[in-house]
Amino acid sequence: MYSFQSDYSEGAHPNILRALETINYHQNNSYGLDEHSGAARELIQEALEDYSADIHFIAGGTLTNLTFISHILKPYEAVISAQTGHINTHETGAIEATGHKVFSIPTQDGKLTPDLIRPVLDLHENEHWVEPRLVYISNPTEIGTVYTKEELEILYGFCQRHHLYLYMDGARLAAALAAEEITHLTFPDLPKLCDAFYIGGTKAGAMFGEALVLIKEEFKDHFRFNMKQRGAILAKGWMIGVQFEELFKDNLYIELGKESIRRMQPIKEAFEEAGIPLLCQAPTNQIFPIFPNALAEEINSRYLTTFQCHPDPEHTCLRFCTSWITNEEAVADFVEHFKDMVIKYQ
Amino acid sequence: MYSFQSDYSEGAHPNILRALETINYHQNNSYGLDEHSGAARELIQEALEDYSADIHFIAGGTLTNLTFISHILKPYEAVISAQTGHINTHETGAIEATGHKVFSIPTQDGKLTPDLIRPVLDLHENEHWVEPRLVYISNPTEIGTVYTKEELEILYGFCQRHHLYLYMDGARLAAALAAEEITHLTFPDLPKLCDAFYIGGTKAGAMFGEALVLIKEEFKDHFRFNMKQRGAILAKGWMIGVQFEELFKDNLYIELGKESIRRMQPIKEAFEEAGIPLLCQAPTNQIFPIFPNALAEEINSRYLTTFQCHPDPEHTCLRFCTSWITNEEAVADFVEHFKDMVIKYQ
Amino acid sequence: MYSFQSDYSEGAHPNILRALETINYHQNNSYGLDEHSGAARELIQEALEDYSADIHFIAGGTLTNLTFISHILKPYEAVISAQTGHINTHETGAIEATGHKVFSIPTQDGKLTPDLIRPVLDLHENEHWVEPRLVYISNPTEIGTVYTKEELEILYGFCQRHHLYLYMDGARLAAALAAEEITHLTFPDLPKLCDAFYIGGTKAGAMFGEALVLIKEEFKDHFRFNMKQRGAILAKGWMIGVQFEELFKDNLYIELGKESIRRMQPIKEAFEEAGIPLLCQAPTNQIFPIFPNALAEEINSRYLTTFQCHPDPEHTCLRFCTSWITNEEAVADFVEHFKDMVIKYQ
Amino acid sequence: MYSFQSDYSEGAHPNILRALETINYHQNNSYGLDEHSGAARELIQEALEDYSADIHFIAGGTLTNLTFISHILKPYEAVISAQTGHINTHETGAIEATGHKVFSIPTQDGKLTPDLIRPVLDLHENEHWVEPRLVYISNPTEIGTVYTKEELEILYGFCQRHHLYLYMDGARLAAALAAEEITHLTFPDLPKLCDAFYIGGTKAGAMFGEALVLIKEEFKDHFRFNMKQRGAILAKGWMIGVQFEELFKDNLYIELGKESIRRMQPIKEAFEEAGIPLLCQAPTNQIFPIFPNALAEEINSRYLTTFQCHPDPEHTCLRFCTSWITNEEAVADFVEHFKDMVIKYQ
Repeated sequence: MYSFQSDYSEGAHPNILRALETINYHQNNSYGLDEHSGAARELIQEALEDYSADIHFIAGGTLTNLTFISHILKPYEAVISAQTGHINTHETGAIEATGHKVFSIPTQDGKLTPDLIRPVLDLHENEHWVEPRLVYISNPTEIGTVYTKEELEILYGFCQRHHLYLYMDGARLAAALAAEEITHLTFPDLPKLCDAFYIGGTKAGAMFGEALVLIKEEFKDHFRFNMKQRGAILAKGWMIGVQFEELFKDNLYIELGKESIRRMQPIKEAFEEAGIPLLCQAPTNQIFPIFPNALAEEINSRYLTTFQCHPDPEHTCLRFCTSWITNEEAVADFVEHFKDMVIKYQ
Repeated sequence: MYSFQSDYSEGAHPNILRALETINYHQNNSYGLDEHSGAARELIQEALEDYSADIHFIAGGTLTNLTFISHILKPYEAVISAQTGHINTHETGAIEATGHKVFSIPTQDGKLTPDLIRPVLDLHENEHWVEPRLVYISNPTEIGTVYTKEELEILYGFCQRHHLYLYMDGARLAAALAAEEITHLTFPDLPKLCDAFYIGGTKAGAMFGEALVLIKEEFKDHFRFNMKQRGAILAKGWMIGVQFEELFKDNLYIELGKESIRRMQPIKEAFEEAGIPLLCQAPTNQIFPIFPNALAEEINSRYLTTFQCHPDPEHTCLRFCTSWITNEEAVADFVEHFKDMVIKYQ
Repeated sequence: MYSFQSDYSEGAHPNILRALETINYHQNNSYGLDEHSGAARELIQEALEDYSADIHFIAGGTLTNLTFISHILKPYEAVISAQTGHINTHETGAIEATGHKVFSIPTQDGKLTPDLIRPVLDLHENEHWVEPRLVYISNPTEIGTVYTKEELEILYGFCQRHHLYLYMDGARLAAALAAEEITHLTFPDLPKLCDAFYIGGTKAGAMFGEALVLIKEEFKDHFRFNMKQRGAILAKGWMIGVQFEELFKDNLYIELGKESIRRMQPIKEAFEEAGIPLLCQAPTNQIFPIFPNALAEEINSRYLTTFQCHPDPEHTCLRFCTSWITNEEAVADFVEHFKDMVIKYQ
Repeated sequence: MYSFQSDYSEGAHPNILRALETINYHQNNSYGLDEHSGAARELIQEALEDYSADIHFIAGGTLTNLTFISHILKPYEAVISAQTGHINTHETGAIEATGHKVFSIPTQDGKLTPDLIRPVLDLHENEHWVEPRLVYISNPTEIGTVYTKEELEILYGFCQRHHLYLYMDGARLAAALAAEEITHLTFPDLPKLCDAFYIGGTKAGAMFGEALVLIKEEFKDHFRFNMKQRGAILAKGWMIGVQFEELFKDNLYIELGKESIRRMQPIKEAFEEAGIPLLCQAPTNQIFPIFPNALAEEINSRYLTTFQCHPDPEHTCLRFCTSWITNEEAVADFVEHFKDMVIKYQ
């Protein structure tokens, strides 16, 4: 069964495979202190146009989030997240396990705004409450929406005025930046619009690995101590460095983001034509169509997708996800099959 | 200014003072392994009609909650609490600081029910989510409501069927049991209706101290290790033991609960007469009247109360709290003053 | 059986009992924000001659240690302690439970020196090691020795030069200061010779309670948040405040320290006369005589003492401890009995 | 400069590279629930001759240790380790960061025995002490020594009788098993001689990844929850699965261990011939020669090695490490250079 379950079902981009092979027998310094990690850091700094950014390579997203957040917060400080935020749902309480409360806010579209955050600050008035200190956002969000540059400017301004850090989980940052036409958001904007973020590799061409970018000066001190303590320093650290070296050559990272969105288009159009509503406007490589239950069941009997929710007892919302390597023939097949299936339920 | 802010504004019941004095120069075993703590444990077991209950004395409520919860949960297990639950709001993230997520549920009246809990269980489907394991309730709740015996039977039955522990924060248990006419809940019901609970002393006649009662067999093992680790074993442990010895003689504990409610009546009646609505039906020693803002301000200029919330921009909800030692003259004065004040705003 | 097991076997000093009684029915602000705690803070500041010291009252020593240490350390920072240090032995891993390694150093006399600490710093060279940051000392130590003023000057100078904090556990500080003739250490020296310390009440006349004194400016920020999170803010906080108010009137605190030492003298002399060696020179209210096993056994059949260790298979080291309220008749009886007993084993 | 610093300076074994390439474009289930991880688990079970062993793939050793240990211990339980144990030195307090004390024991050769452990158990007598529960050993140890099968039998028997778990850190297990002639230890012995262990991939042919093997039944429950919480579930989990599939075909894992030892021989012999003493008898791919300081300096000016310690002020102990891919020409060159160098210092 072909899977539209995720954008991490396949391996690495061929450039990455080739690079890993090329350097396989070279000796390298361990623990991320090697030349390839160094070169990758420089390429990322160039893309960000920020040469003081501190960059660390970590094997996965949850490990990145928990290592970063436990590094910057004091024991009584808390995180604010959308209720749908990855750290609030799908990380098995990883942040709380490091001692910090995640205060979650219900949202319409997975995105946080000053109006949503303000009442939380008002509530937390003294030492009997945790002190909200970090605003965690995902971009794209877990339901496929993206922040525009203007939204981020407003949000970051608010954070700065209220003594809050802003951190962006960029597990799918390639897709967010690939949607530049809609968001006007580019790499060089990021260091100006948040205090830290990570550039997701796993879902954009890498075999594994994320690049955490620390902008705020005070975050940089002793960060590698915390990494080691959390098991986030890889012995053969260059294995991630090499991958980011490739991703940041010739704009490959953004290109793969674009490709992942492009391969979603036929599916999206098929749903539109059939009048299938979406959970929300999601311009990236994840969409959340809402089907009559029976149609959802039939789809799932022939393709792998991810169950999202039942918006009402008669309907099922599924997640479809594509990547830079999603098979275009499989997409065409699906579209054709879908047209056959949908007729029965209309 | 007379204070109706809390039920812990004054000292200890005279019996307790006298007892502390009587034994002051005796030698005692330390760390709660003394005769008075032993005698207090027996008196509590008698009241509960459960002679296998494990009873530990701890200086305060937050320390009791965090010591107990961190003892029984595995790292990936989480607590379910009403959004208003004390551990979710006024304990500065104490539970998260021990590594556990508190999943909070919005409620109308501060009380949890199977219908509110069921969707949370459905949501937490696999290893990407924390595992809900403990249902935390307060009785009375933080907004003065109480659980009836029947409600607890239903809730505990549900918990048992779903592999959930039930724990009752009894900071004001004296008031809950004093409301027996409404709730039909008595001491001997408690070991049958939850897995653990604590009997609050601080708000019911003690100088300080709470009695944690462990019912479920598996909770009892090595509990004192966890107590010591959290700083919850008092060197002169008998100081709490002696107090509970007194509280559990001649039904004093419940009597003090009743007295705290009785002293609230004149105030409650004054609000009723004046047509002041309450946030919810609260039959104990805490009530939450909703005043026009200006009236609330005038009250606060002459008495100490606790701000609860603004239900709408024009109104202010305040908490009034009485105890077994609230000055009855001060209550009478307040009622008189209130009648004068309220006229201006009607 | 009379007990020489500890200096916390009896209740409170009569002045304290009387004060608690006097204010029992007064209304007080909760959570340590009351007038008595305020007055106690001022009296302590006066004794220390440091009016910017931040003072917090906490129910017990372990709770004080863990709240303080978890407040000031970053996740990757560690504590250096003598192997005999209370946090390294008798607190059930309370510091590690907050996430921090305790690096322990074997010592002759329970005291740390620059020469003992230096190799530890050399060892911890990079991010693969924890970062030693806090030097924890007890004064008196757990084996009854005391630091002289000069030793503390040398140690604190070393700490300051090596980016280390110095913290003194003063569970028995009254005894250390009562030994001024030997140590030349007085209250006003403390804020100049360490970054924080606590003044133990439990073992010097209080019913319970310790006063944590924060000297270093950066420690003071948000400390009450951490206190609340660890369950270390007592609802009726004035109960400790009142006690320290009494202890710091008319030099009572030091007087009780002196009295506890004075009452040890007859016992100490009896051991000297009988040629019983001591584990180390301990000039305070704890001594550690080394007896032939059979003599130790006979003593323990008639008095309660604390087992310390077997320095060799034929000998037993016991701890004898007195306090300001140790019964002088019981001491005289012991001395007489001891003389009878010791003859048999010589 | 050629490096003898570690056995993780180069990439992956060619079989592994080829396999990663072969499956690169296939779709796989995520999070380690894929066919390759499944096949690798079966191959490992076959090698162990234990078909009920639970096997989990984790990116690195520290992450494996902390995830495992925090899963099995209760809050008040502690680890016993040799002072040289990796978790006690080079993991930045990772175990303490999960809340558990590591009790370290000085040893001659990095190995633990019942005689070394017994006094620790005697010391930890009640709830004021942590409860020792897990014995952590590394095999080979951090100083290159190995446990014989008999030593493990004695140690594990002791652990079982004293309610202690035994866990083996097998970062270099390939080398330990390759030394079978000396140790008589083979794969099928492991499930019978400890409760859990990990099979290190990183230092034996893998790009990255370790295989944690859980033997004791109670460890298996909910382990993936803890993995996810610690960030130890890799999204593209098959990337590790594929590697272990290769390592466990045709005995490759052990062969690589043997090769790593074989390539050390010429160096070891050169030291022997020159009369250079070793820190201890280390029959694997790490040796610790002790040089006059000046000779050590000259070596380090031409080759990369790792500083171990100064056994005395005039001597320097260095670590030399080889792997299955250490360049044999570089080894020959070193031997020749060494012979020239050593003459000057004799």
